[in-house]
Amino acid sequence: MTAPGTVHGVGLGPGAADLMSVRADRLVRGARHLAYFRKAGRRGRARRLVDGMLRADVVEFPMDYPVTTEIAVDDPAYNERLAAFYADCTGHLAMLAAAGEDVVVLCEGDPFFYGSFMHLHARLRGRVPVAVVPGVTGMSGAWTATDIPITWGDDVLTITTATLPECELARRIADTDALVVMKIGRHLPKLRRAVAAAGRTAAAWLVEYAAMPEQRVVPLADAGDDAPYFSILLIHGRGRRP
Amino acid sequence: MTAPGTVHGVGLGPGAADLMSVRADRLVRGARHLAYFRKAGRRGRARRLVDGMLRADVVEFPMDYPVTTEIAVDDPAYNERLAAFYADCTGHLAMLAAAGEDVVVLCEGDPFFYGSFMHLHARLRGRVPVAVVPGVTGMSGAWTATDIPITWGDDVLTITTATLPECELARRIADTDALVVMKIGRHLPKLRRAVAAAGRTAAAWLVEYAAMPEQRVVPLADAGDDAPYFSILLIHGRGRRP
Repeated sequence: MTAPGTVHGVGLGPGAADLMSVRADRLVRGARHLAYFRKAGRRGRARRLVDGMLRADVVEFPMDYPVTTEIAVDDPAYNERLAAFYADCTGHLAMLAAAGEDVVVLCEGDPFFYGSFMHLHARLRGRVPVAVVPGVTGMSGAWTATDIPITWGDDVLTITTATLPECELARRIADTDALVVMKIGRHLPKLRRAVAAAGRTAAAWLVEYAAMPEQRVVPLADAGDDAPYFSILLIHGRGRRP
Repeated sequence: MTAPGTVHGVGLGPGAADLMSVRADRLVRGARHLAYFRKAGRRGRARRLVDGMLRADVVEFPMDYPVTTEIAVDDPAYNERLAAFYADCTGHLAMLAAAGEDVVVLCEGDPFFYGSFMHLHARLRGRVPVAVVPGVTGMSGAWTATDIPITWGDDVLTITTATLPECELARRIADTDALVVMKIGRHLPKLRRAVAAAGRTAAAWLVEYAAMPEQRVVPLADAGDDAPYFSILLIHGRGRRP
């Protein structure tokens, strides 16, 4: 019987190829089987990041999301379609691993921090060997881009998604020292109102495409009403500093 | 006039040498001047991590903390002594940079996330060129060590330090989906009571020395009353998952 291969969930970091870890770099360059999520019809941001790093004989397995924003996330059909999709992907990866093949799954940022790989991991665990390589998060890329530290001393840092209801966002923004908001996109106008309700607009920054060539850092007050999905809002802590 | 050198604050990641970024690895291996914080009388955790990676002609500048826990952090003498120490370190690094030398400052985890480098950065900014390389945080190392994702869907993640008052800790632990607590050490008994008051003991994990050879992951309920300073407490989110 063939010894099973391992499915590696590999964190690529925030978007610059040299911000991936040495371990990730080694796994990506050595991969015979490479899997990655992407929006249907796109090349995929994770895949583009490893351009020029791959073996000539690499076998690619793109996993095209069946839905993104066409169905509301609270519609049961959304969950059903995604669950079927993740089950399909898992089946393919488990088959490769069972045949003795290692597979590298590309993950933007850190795999266990709001990452799609988690949905594969939950299904693969116990079936085949799975290993996770942590990565630099997109939010670390974002606060580094502002050139201002995010947390000092005893600062509390709250990380939330812009998908929460406006009053809940405002409450949490008022009740923290430092703040990171992920998954902004079309929720920016709501998020802007919540930051204003918490009285913190002057301290808020919007970072788009952190660590990538198109990186952009703007005070929230100067930002328009459109933000890419991969933008991050930050409020820096002001804790104890000798 | 010599063009000034750059002071690089380089994130080393959670503690395994191959979890530093490709950029950090390149800077460390190429460094002629290397600075790092350490507890007086110790070799220093950051310095040990780069053993075997350094140039033969590297010039090391260890920065020994003048105080750690001998003086309470709310004693004005604590701040005064640390401020003088950071000013001294800054003076030396600025002198090197002004003379055209690049300097690599080793930073555990991510430099801008509760890191001592921030105190140098604040003093060097505007005097000499400073560049920051983000790193994998210790907390990413910790949740990867548990083999359980930290945040799903719309989960709110609260990051706090165990130095906060007990009732404040309990309030925040009850009001979040996912939790990370840093700087635990001698605060563990207080933190344990706060987690219990929030009714979440059964969901809490303690991770010591994440990503290092001595890594240890234990349910909080099974942990003793001593924890190293670099231990991290985690409660994983349980948000939406198809």
